[in-house]
Order: sequence, then C-alpha cells, then structure tokens
Amino acid sequence: MALSSDRMLAPWNHLAQENVAVGFVDTILRGCGQVMFQNNPVTGLLFLIGIFINSPLLGLAGLIGLIVSTVTAMLLRVERTLVRAGLFGYNGILTGIGLAFFLQWNAFLVVYIIIGAVISTVVMMALANFFSTWDMPALTAPFVLTTWLLLFAALLFASVRPTLAIHPTLLNPLVPVQTAIRPLPFSLIGSGATLVNLLQAFFRGVGEVFFQDNLVTGIIFLIAILVNSRISALFAALGSLVGMLSAWLLFGGDGFWVYHGLYGFNAVLCAIAVGGIFYVFTWQSAIYALVCALFGTAVMAGISAFLSHIGMPALTGPFVLSALLFLLPKENFHALRPVALTDVAAPEQIRRTFFEREQAAAAEAGTAS
Amino acid sequence: MALSSDRMLAPWNHLAQENVAVGFVDTILRGCGQVMFQNNPVTGLLFLIGIFINSPLLGLAGLIGLIVSTVTAMLLRVERTLVRAGLFGYNGILTGIGLAFFLQWNAFLVVYIIIGAVISTVVMMALANFFSTWDMPALTAPFVLTTWLLLFAALLFASVRPTLAIHPTLLNPLVPVQTAIRPLPFSLIGSGATLVNLLQAFFRGVGEVFFQDNLVTGIIFLIAILVNSRISALFAALGSLVGMLSAWLLFGGDGFWVYHGLYGFNAVLCAIAVGGIFYVFTWQSAIYALVCALFGTAVMAGISAFLSHIGMPALTGPFVLSALLFLLPKENFHALRPVALTDVAAPEQIRRTFFEREQAAAAEAGTAS
Amino acid sequence: MALSSDRMLAPWNHLAQENVAVGFVDTILRGCGQVMFQNNPVTGLLFLIGIFINSPLLGLAGLIGLIVSTVTAMLLRVERTLVRAGLFGYNGILTGIGLAFFLQWNAFLVVYIIIGAVISTVVMMALANFFSTWDMPALTAPFVLTTWLLLFAALLFASVRPTLAIHPTLLNPLVPVQTAIRPLPFSLIGSGATLVNLLQAFFRGVGEVFFQDNLVTGIIFLIAILVNSRISALFAALGSLVGMLSAWLLFGGDGFWVYHGLYGFNAVLCAIAVGGIFYVFTWQSAIYALVCALFGTAVMAGISAFLSHIGMPALTGPFVLSALLFLLPKENFHALRPVALTDVAAPEQIRRTFFEREQAAAAEAGTAS
Repeated sequence: MALSSDRMLAPWNHLAQENVAVGFVDTILRGCGQVMFQNNPVTGLLFLIGIFINSPLLGLAGLIGLIVSTVTAMLLRVERTLVRAGLFGYNGILTGIGLAFFLQWNAFLVVYIIIGAVISTVVMMALANFFSTWDMPALTAPFVLTTWLLLFAALLFASVRPTLAIHPTLLNPLVPVQTAIRPLPFSLIGSGATLVNLLQAFFRGVGEVFFQDNLVTGIIFLIAILVNSRISALFAALGSLVGMLSAWLLFGGDGFWVYHGLYGFNAVLCAIAVGGIFYVFTWQSAIYALVCALFGTAVMAGISAFLSHIGMPALTGPFVLSALLFLLPKENFHALRPVALTDVAAPEQIRRTFFEREQAAAAEAGTAS
Repeated sequence: MALSSDRMLAPWNHLAQENVAVGFVDTILRGCGQVMFQNNPVTGLLFLIGIFINSPLLGLAGLIGLIVSTVTAMLLRVERTLVRAGLFGYNGILTGIGLAFFLQWNAFLVVYIIIGAVISTVVMMALANFFSTWDMPALTAPFVLTTWLLLFAALLFASVRPTLAIHPTLLNPLVPVQTAIRPLPFSLIGSGATLVNLLQAFFRGVGEVFFQDNLVTGIIFLIAILVNSRISALFAALGSLVGMLSAWLLFGGDGFWVYHGLYGFNAVLCAIAVGGIFYVFTWQSAIYALVCALFGTAVMAGISAFLSHIGMPALTGPFVLSALLFLLPKENFHALRPVALTDVAAPEQIRRTFFEREQAAAAEAGTAS
Repeated sequence: MALSSDRMLAPWNHLAQENVAVGFVDTILRGCGQVMFQNNPVTGLLFLIGIFINSPLLGLAGLIGLIVSTVTAMLLRVERTLVRAGLFGYNGILTGIGLAFFLQWNAFLVVYIIIGAVISTVVMMALANFFSTWDMPALTAPFVLTTWLLLFAALLFASVRPTLAIHPTLLNPLVPVQTAIRPLPFSLIGSGATLVNLLQAFFRGVGEVFFQDNLVTGIIFLIAILVNSRISALFAALGSLVGMLSAWLLFGGDGFWVYHGLYGFNAVLCAIAVGGIFYVFTWQSAIYALVCALFGTAVMAGISAFLSHIGMPALTGPFVLSALLFLLPKENFHALRPVALTDVAAPEQIRRTFFEREQAAAAEAGTAS
C-alpha cells in the first residue's frame, strides 16, 4: 500500500472536480509528478518543494514552464482528460528549468522560457501522435527536442547567453579520464570512494532528473515517489544505483560527473519506466529494466561526446533513446508483458489489473472446457 | 480573387493536356511553384524569372535539377498525377541551386547536381511514403537530406570543393554576437536599422527560400505567390516579417544574417504551410502559423550551431522540423482544422470547400432532426 | 544453380532440426551469413573462416557478439523462426567486431562487447517493429546505432580507450584531398592506379563489410556469397566496383580509403540489398541498385565528415540510410517490383516465385475471360 492511498486523496479529488481553480492546481501538480510517471498531486507537490529547497530561481523557472505549457494545451483545446492527467505539464517544467540552468538569467530569459513552454506543448502533441503508431509514449522527448534546439540557438543569440557549463570542445582521446569521485571538477579535494561521496552520488542521481544537484532534494524526490508507488520508488533507487555503480566501477566515467549524479538521472528514469510502468512488474521486467538503466548510462556518455563540439548537455536524451529502444519490442519479447498506453497507471495497479485479467481469462477457459 | 484565375489559365491547361511538350513545360513550372506550395505554372514562371534576374548561373543549376528530378520520376514510373502537380520537381530545383550555391563551379559540379536531382526524387518518394502514415507531407525534407549529405561529402571529395561560405569552426560562447543590421559580415559600413536595411532584410527573406540574396527577386517572388493566392502571399510577407523582427529585436541574432534574410526564409515557409495550406485559414491557424514562424527562426540558429563544426548551412531544415512538429498534432488541437493531404489546394479553395462541407453537414443535421 | 543447392544441405538441415546443439550451430552460422543477406550456414561458415584468416582476435570478438546476441534473443523468447533464420545474430557479430576494431584490447573490452551484443538484440527487435509499419527491414541499423553509441561513449570512459583510428578533428576545406590510391595514409610508397592496387581496393571493399581489411578475405567472402546466390555475388562484386570507381574517378575521394576498400563496403551492401533481395532482380532493379551503391559511396563521405568532430567511423550507416531511402518508395515506382518481407529468400528463389505467381495470375485471367 502506498503512503497516499486513493482514499486519502478522495476529498481533494472531489474538490478538484468541483472547483476550477483547485482543478487547475491539481493539473499543475500532476504535471510535475508526471516527470517521473507519477500521476499524483502529492508527489508533484513534494517534487516542487524539493526543487524550491535547492533553488528558488530554478523552481520559479520550472513553475512558469509548467503553467504556460498547461495553459497552452488548454487554449489549443487538447482533450481535457489528457491535460488533467498532467501530460502537458511535465515537458514544460523541465524545459523551464533546463533553459534556466544552462543560460544566464536576464529579463529575456523569462520570454525564452515562455516560448519554450509553448513549443513543448506543440511538440508533445506532435510526438504523442507520431509514437501512437506503435502505442509508444513520447516520454520526455518533447522537452529534450525543444530544449536542445533553444539551447543550441543560444550560441548564436545575443539576448540569451550560455553559462560556463557550456564549453564547446574537441575531445582528445589521449587525455586520460579522471575517475576519482569528487565534488570539484579539477581538484582532488574531497575525492575518493567514501561513504559520504557515494551517498551524494546516489541521491543527487535522483535529484538531477529535475537538474537538482542536491542530496536533500534527492531524498525528498524518493519520498515523493514512494507516496504514489513503492515499485517506482524501488526502481528509482535501483536506477540511481546502477547508473552510479556502472559509471564508477564498470565504465570508468568521470568521477566529478558520478559525484553529481550526472550518470544517475537517466538510469533512474529508464528503471522507473521499464520496470513497472510500460511493462508489468515481474522479475524478468526487473532485470530488463536494470539492463536498460545500464545502457542508458553508456548512452549518457555517448550523446555527451556527440554534442561536445557545441558543449551541450545530453539532458534526458539518453533516457528517451534507451527506453524507447527497450519498449519498442513489446510483445515480441514473450518473456515480458507490455502495458498498453491506455492501461498505464501506478505499477501496483497495473500488476493487479493484469493478474485479475489473467485469472478471469483462465477461469473462463476453465468454464468453457 | 487571385490575379491569375482558373479561367485565365484554362486555355493553357487545355494545351498542356493535349500537347506532350507543353505538358512537360507545365509540369516543370508547377514544380518550381511547389517550392512555396503554389501549384500554378505562372507562379513557377515568375519564380524562375526572379532567380535568373539575380543569378543566371544559379538559375541554370536549378533548371537542371528541376528537369532531371522530374524526368527521373517519369522513368521510375511514378503515378502521373503526382508528377504533373510538380511534386517531383521542387526538391530537384532546390537541390540544384543549393549545390551550386555552396560548391565551386567546375565541370563535375554539373554531374554532382544531376546525381543530387536523381536522388532527390528517390528520397521524395521514400519520405512521402514514410510520412503518409500520419497523412503528413514530406515538405522540402528530400531536398534538405539529399543536399546535406552531398554537401557534407564535398568536404572529403577532391572533385567538388566548398566555397568560402563553408568554414568549419568551434563556436566560442564568450565571443559576443554582432547584432547591428549590416550588408557586410565583418564591417559596420552601412549598418543600422535604417528603412533601406529593413526593406532589404524583409524582401531578401522571401528571396532566400531559393537562395536568392536579392531585394528585387524577393519582390518578384511575392508577386508570383500573389498570382495564385492572396492568403499565401500574406503569410509569406508575415513570415519574413516575423523572422526578421524576432531575430533582430527578440533573439538578438547576427545582424549580417538578418540583413541578408537568413532568418527570414524558414519563417516564410513555416507561415505559408501552416497558415492556410495544411490547416484551414482561420484566426486561430493564423496565430499558430506565426508562432511556428517564430520557432522556425530559433531553430535556424539551433541547427546552424549544431552544424558549425563542419560549417554547413541549415538549408530549409528549420522549416521542415518546425512545420512537421506544428502539423503532426492535427485534429488533436481542436482549436485548429487540419487539411487532409488529398484536399490540399490554394488556401482560398481549401477554405471554401471546408465551409461548404460544414454547411452541408449542418443542413443535413437540420433536415434529419 | 548455386554451388550449395538445397539438396546438398538437406542432411545438415535435418540434423539441425533433430539435434539442439547442431541447431544452435546452424543458427549461429546463418546469423553470420545474414550480414550479407545470405540465410545459409555454409556461407556463414566461410565468412567466419575469412575473418579468422585475417584476424583471429577480431574473429573471437565477432563470435562472442554472435553467440551472446543470439542467446539473448532466446532468453527474451523471441519467436523461434526469426532466431533460427539468424536475424538476431548478424548485428551481434558486427557489434563485436566493430567494438574490437576501434577500441584497445583489455579485459573490460570483452564485457563491453557482451553488453553491446545484448543491446543489439533489443535494438534489433525495436527497429524491426518500428520499420514493420512500412514492411521495411531493419538492415544493419541495430549494429550501427548500438556500436555508435558505445564507441562515442568510449571517448568519456577510462575502461575502454579508442585506438589511434579515432582522431577527432575540425575539417579544413582548404587542405586538398589526396586522391592517389595508396596503402599508407601519409606516404606515397606503392601509390598509383596499378592493377595490384585496384585489385586490393576491389576485394578489400568486400572484406570491409566485416571490417576485414584483407584481399584474401575479400575473395573468400565473394565465394561464400556465391555458394548461396550467384545474383548476390554478382551485386557484391558490382557494388565494390561502383564504390571503388566512383570514389576514385568521379568524386575524388581519399586514395588511402579507396585502397583499403572504405568506399566499397557500403556500396557492396546497397547493391546486394536493392538488386535482388528487396526488389525482384530485373534490369531496372539492377540499374536502381547501382545508383543506390553510387549514392551510398557519397553518403559514406557525408556521414564521415559529419562525425569528424569526434573522429568516429560511419560504420554501415551509409548503407542503412541509402538502402532505406531506395527501398521505401516500394510499389510507387512502378518500374520496380518490391518484395514483401515475408517473401525474402535468395534472389533466384524470389525471382522464380515472382514469375510463377505472375504466370498463374495471367493464366487465371485468361480462364476467366
């Protein structure tokens, strides 16, 4: 049983249906929760709290993106149930935070975030239609595509300027990779595989899904997921662990990146999506999800290298690519049980529905014979 | 009423059906017109005149591409009505001009243009089939894909050599962007937001759809569109305006690019396509089209930055990407009325048909009740 | 009649169906043969021999990839007939060899190859489902995508390090391309269009499909194809010829690349796939296949230039892109006769079936009238 049961949420849901303003707040909060596939206003609220605790400015940018993208969907008259489930908010909040994270603050940045949020809603509907051919979700592809294009463009625009996090470079394969886990990019102060550093890496990996490079925020995020689904919380933790450990011990990734959770967040999303949301949670799908998380960690390095000439971040591109590749096989991998998009819910609910259907089918077959 | 009514064209159309040679010329001219979605031989003829006035050499290159791509479609025995509508010419003419614009003239360039034109027809049919899954048009994607690959390849080929317009570079975010509107890249002579400079920017924006960096050609192009559709001419003008003004005042793009219409031509195509061709012209689709033009302007910078390491041009890639993203949502945005590919015609015609159908449906519903 | 008739293979096929171990070996060998579309264990065996003759180490890497990817498909319970046809082996062997070719050997490389092979099977099923919308094959796209991502990632990983074949660079269009055919990159020793050099280029072009830069291996590969299909062997030879000659005489590509068959292998695959496998072999499809091979040669340069900033190889990406573009038009080019995926077999068989069906249809029409 998740901490926030349907029963506990019932009065709020009732109010959200009656009152337009409460309904809008509910939509906004669900949009925030949907970033990690949690269609739950409490989860969304805790996500927002976690973000504001780390950075009120990024929180503000995210909130603008969240509201603008949702309102855009309303103005364009998207089907109401889709909007109410927060499906036109999660790309907006990520676009808002993403632009604010990599660009310098100025008055125009707010306009740029608003443009990005509007576009994210158009791209969401476009990609949802595109992927519906295979009954596939758009995941955070609308955020990634929109934010990439606007960040790339910033290199040629005077009104928005990249922060120092953007430094175009030609990679030199002869320069060795610094694998010591460490909080500072070019210094070895505080480096090493200490318990503190590993905990930092683990929780920041969860926080970085929202660009939150902060241990406490990571803890709040995990609790937020737990409020809606224990299975998703488990996979979020396992995903961060797989990302961190494989980058550190297996691949030998940059230890600065490992410390700051940069090899974790894509793995977190891979694990949640594949392990219980778009496949029914079974031991087979669990292994499959962790392999996807492992692959997502390598793809993080791959896409980052590919974008090194313009110094641009991979965002959640590695998650989108890895997860889509792991979801597209669907029922062709008979060892797994894919979930139709219309059946997506909390993993516990999906599992329950699935086994009930299976039992009903078995019972019917028994009656028939 | 457009300047060239169906009645005025009737004798020509009759002749084109009777006489093979005239039919071929008609096909060629329509292929030229289709670059801006105008299935009209007079529009195509004026486009050609505009090009030849600016550069006979580019005109020749375009004509070779136009004829070769059309003949290739005939030899491969594509359905006749598609060829006759000019759908296998517009990518060929753009490929021809595009290669001639960015590569140095030599005997082999003609062979390279012929190869490009042949390939553009294959890619057109391939992408038309690909996008038919969503009833989406291929737009100028065949031209962009073919020309990109052949231009990229030129960096490694001795037979074709890039002009100085191609200079691979690593972008440095610390170098400020020069926003003063100016005709010369590194000088401030004639710079500033004078009326002349703004008119140059505005008309060159239309001209650059065909790589024609020329005010007079831009004027002729606008007239050519007006011959077939006032709505398309309006959106061509609005698109160039949005591209120019947003690049100049909003984003702070390079003023040399603004002067030469390089932020305009993708916006022009976005505006025409979205505002009246693939959505029924309404005030909602008008706003939607201008937002698409604004986005296309940012994507122009985004793709250009992405290709900076090989110094390659974005071509109409920004238009293709932006317009496809704005078209894919289709009827899911209930505020807009998408046009099925088989119903595409001049915007005025589309609008008439649509409202007639709506009235007929309403009348029928009235009779039934 | 091919050298290895169905009759000659009958005892082996019988044994493969009876005995699980023999069946597995048969699957493995067919997987190897499928790299060049030859579903024949003898062809696969000869391919393996050709590889081991040139490099036992690359052969070992390929074998690991081949076995791991096949076993992964079995564990994920893919439909048995697909696995038995070797469709989950050919990307695995290429991924194994590709990683071993461009990365330095160390203990971890074996782990990396295993990861790559597992992923290649997931990506194969994903892309097969994706392309099934258009009844299109995935070709070697799973290998290309998986290997690209893992090679790009290696630039940021300490556990795997690129060989000197990977050198990121900014291309300078002002540096002339060295077109003299030669065995050494920066020296002119042994350069020139001698018969020996041209034979080297021709046979290495076939060998490079498996990264085998070796004349003898190329000869063995051609014989291996001939064992299953004379038409495919013919197109393999023609493809290598078109790649070599067009790069040398037409485009003016780097003569070191020409000598080592680097402009040949994509053309080889284009020619085999388009000329007899996915279109019925006719004189029209033969010309079409050679144009595709020519285009694939240019795309080889195009993609290589595009990846120059991270110094990464194009792999068989040029083949995948060119062939898909030439296959997607399907029955819309009435001059060609596309083959449904379920009808794919040896070109001779496809041709026989097709004309039998045509005759039967004609006979029926005759009876009916």
